[in-house]
Amino acid sequence: MAEMANDATCEFCDIVAKSAMAHVRYEDDELIVFRNRLRWVPIMLLVTPKEHLSQCDFWVSPLFGRAAEIAVRIGEEDAQDGFRLVSNFGEDALQTQPHGHLHIVGGAGLGLYLDFEGKGDFWQKIYGGAMQ
Amino acid sequence: MAEMANDATCEFCDIVAKSAMAHVRYEDDELIVFRNRLRWVPIMLLVTPKEHLSQCDFWVSPLFGRAAEIAVRIGEEDAQDGFRLVSNFGEDALQTQPHGHLHIVGGAGLGLYLDFEGKGDFWQKIYGGAMQ
Repeated sequence: MAEMANDATCEFCDIVAKSAMAHVRYEDDELIVFRNRLRWVPIMLLVTPKEHLSQCDFWVSPLFGRAAEIAVRIGEEDAQDGFRLVSNFGEDALQTQPHGHLHIVGGAGLGLYLDFEGKGDFWQKIYGGAMQ
Repeated sequence: MAEMANDATCEFCDIVAKSAMAHVRYEDDELIVFRNRLRWVPIMLLVTPKEHLSQCDFWVSPLFGRAAEIAVRIGEEDAQDGFRLVSNFGEDALQTQPHGHLHIVGGAGLGLYLDFEGKGDFWQKIYGGAMQ
């Protein structure tokens, strides 16, 4: 593996370097999939390049196609009733980690993939107010 | 372009075939990016293969790396304060179209990327109750 430009202040680089603990679901020379510390829904995994790439650089890298395939395969295995693959870029999307990553979430009804003004009305119309 | 196995009952295949209207943001031989009919936030675009691929088949196809790059470039251009890239797979994720697609959403605060029990309490803790 090529030498990786890791960031000494990055939580995900610490997980890659095994200086921070994480439950690892998958790992190879270039990618690691570990469990998010959040427990909002049963399945919350992060597909992450070992190299410290920004979110944009990860998504446009040659590595991303393989990350996408691994994410789909894990989603199919772990969340047979459905899953969501999502990445957040910047402030409007509430990106919290600079190190690029793709979320796999599932194991429960996930509701919608964003919040917006009038979302409650939307649910009211579709489901008679039953918020998933 | 190879002959495409389009589905006569598929709304997205109708858009590809130009038998249904959509505002097209980008198009080439294999991919089309068009505006979602939903208007939840200002930027809602769908990156879609012209061929009728399932969500999983799209994400694991050789085409997906290029779709990812196009999505990032459009997000950067159209939503400079941030954007979210997301695909829903199956029932738990509320996937509504069988034809694979990657959402680009932005142009406003997007809140979180899923709903879950206790989400209101989470926001209360983080933002003092101010729901984005």
